[in-house]
Amino acid sequence: MLAPDQLRDAVERYLATLELAPELGLLEGPIRYALEPGGKRIRPILCLAVAESAGGDVDEALPAAAAIELVHTFSLVHDDLPAMDDDAERRGRPSAHVVFGEGPALLAGDALLAEAVRLALTYGTTGIARELVEATLGMIGGQHRDIAGETEDSTELQALKTGRLFTAAVGLGLGVARVPEAEQAPWRAFGEELGVLFQTVDDILDADGVVEELGAEAARGRADDAAARARARLEALPADTAVLRELVDRLAERTV
Amino acid sequence: MLAPDQLRDAVERYLATLELAPELGLLEGPIRYALEPGGKRIRPILCLAVAESAGGDVDEALPAAAAIELVHTFSLVHDDLPAMDDDAERRGRPSAHVVFGEGPALLAGDALLAEAVRLALTYGTTGIARELVEATLGMIGGQHRDIAGETEDSTELQALKTGRLFTAAVGLGLGVARVPEAEQAPWRAFGEELGVLFQTVDDILDADGVVEELGAEAARGRADDAAARARARLEALPADTAVLRELVDRLAERTV
Repeated sequence: MLAPDQLRDAVERYLATLELAPELGLLEGPIRYALEPGGKRIRPILCLAVAESAGGDVDEALPAAAAIELVHTFSLVHDDLPAMDDDAERRGRPSAHVVFGEGPALLAGDALLAEAVRLALTYGTTGIARELVEATLGMIGGQHRDIAGETEDSTELQALKTGRLFTAAVGLGLGVARVPEAEQAPWRAFGEELGVLFQTVDDILDADGVVEELGAEAARGRADDAAARARARLEALPADTAVLRELVDRLAERTV
Repeated sequence: MLAPDQLRDAVERYLATLELAPELGLLEGPIRYALEPGGKRIRPILCLAVAESAGGDVDEALPAAAAIELVHTFSLVHDDLPAMDDDAERRGRPSAHVVFGEGPALLAGDALLAEAVRLALTYGTTGIARELVEATLGMIGGQHRDIAGETEDSTELQALKTGRLFTAAVGLGLGVARVPEAEQAPWRAFGEELGVLFQTVDDILDADGVVEELGAEAARGRADDAAARARARLEALPADTAVLRELVDRLAERTV
């Protein structure tokens, strides 16, 4: 079993050498810039770790893991645009639109989504791509609720904005490992808990979201509860989930 | 064989009742607005006519035809944004971002692309979706060349911006009709000629593009040549291509 850091290295290597559609031409610049190392790569690592825990092969899962990261990156590039959150910085560097202009950043985001689907289609069956686009639609719905101010139900909002891609990362790992659908529910429930944990810790580190809503103490409680439920889900799985357990611990304790 | 107007009605009915992912919530507003009747629907009509000419079933081809139209609509919504062409009007109405705001229009475009892929995946095989996303990537590459000012080679630019979706419309029709790949080349060549015809007439009606480059007379000559080659392609096909022939005539003679 590969440790999280080894899985992360595998993701970085795969993304660094990912072939893009040649017709994209000079748009490759902003696409590569947005995909450069700097992110946590938590979604693709989760996908790979689930695939390996469930008896699948890490190399076989890499295109699916990369597809999830491309969808996440597409959402960041579009989110940072002036039309959305208008963030000039991302991961301590200028956002794609600041470096390349708004038009190229918009198109780079579009291309990242299309390339993600192309990766998902390399599996020769429709299941991986279907899970990916359905999660993407959920995420987009969450982003729209966010900018439209429909934020009263923060649990639903986060389930869409963050949870859907986390659950899809798990689902894609299971799909690659050919875990029958009837056995997938407890794994997916783990993915949902991990999404809640990730987002709640994010809010704690940024002092927004659930911290603004419930206060710092309640937010910490929510994170700890989600971590506990995620660990309990793993313990109930008939698989070697040591690496996934390590992921839970890291997400619970992270400070960046 | 259904006539172009009947095919168009079938497309309108299908799009009007198309079910969107429920998580999109209120984003359905700008998505439906962008999809409302008013466009020529030439790409989906082409897809349906090719499917029927090639021995396939129109109803079976409708999801693929709609997927092509959704990709086209996604590209229009994003193209109209201030970050791109900054067009306040589309088909005589206010653009989506003027009515709903830039953020919702951006997300509506993203959702249209994802929904297009979801439609393409309903066929249970990966071929339809793969052709759709590969054409989409080519189109995005063309859009980037356009905004980056890489417009010296107008033939290549139009082959990407317009041609790729036209050829995909043909390819999807063939895919639904299960035409073996070895027999597809002459059909696809027809699609390319039709794309050149469509775009050249567009430039003539707008007095830009190839008209600016070569003058009005040369542009008309290019359109007539493309129409003649498209008709010749049809005549060489072992199929009833009367409806496709009518499409060529309409595109050659259109004044809007």
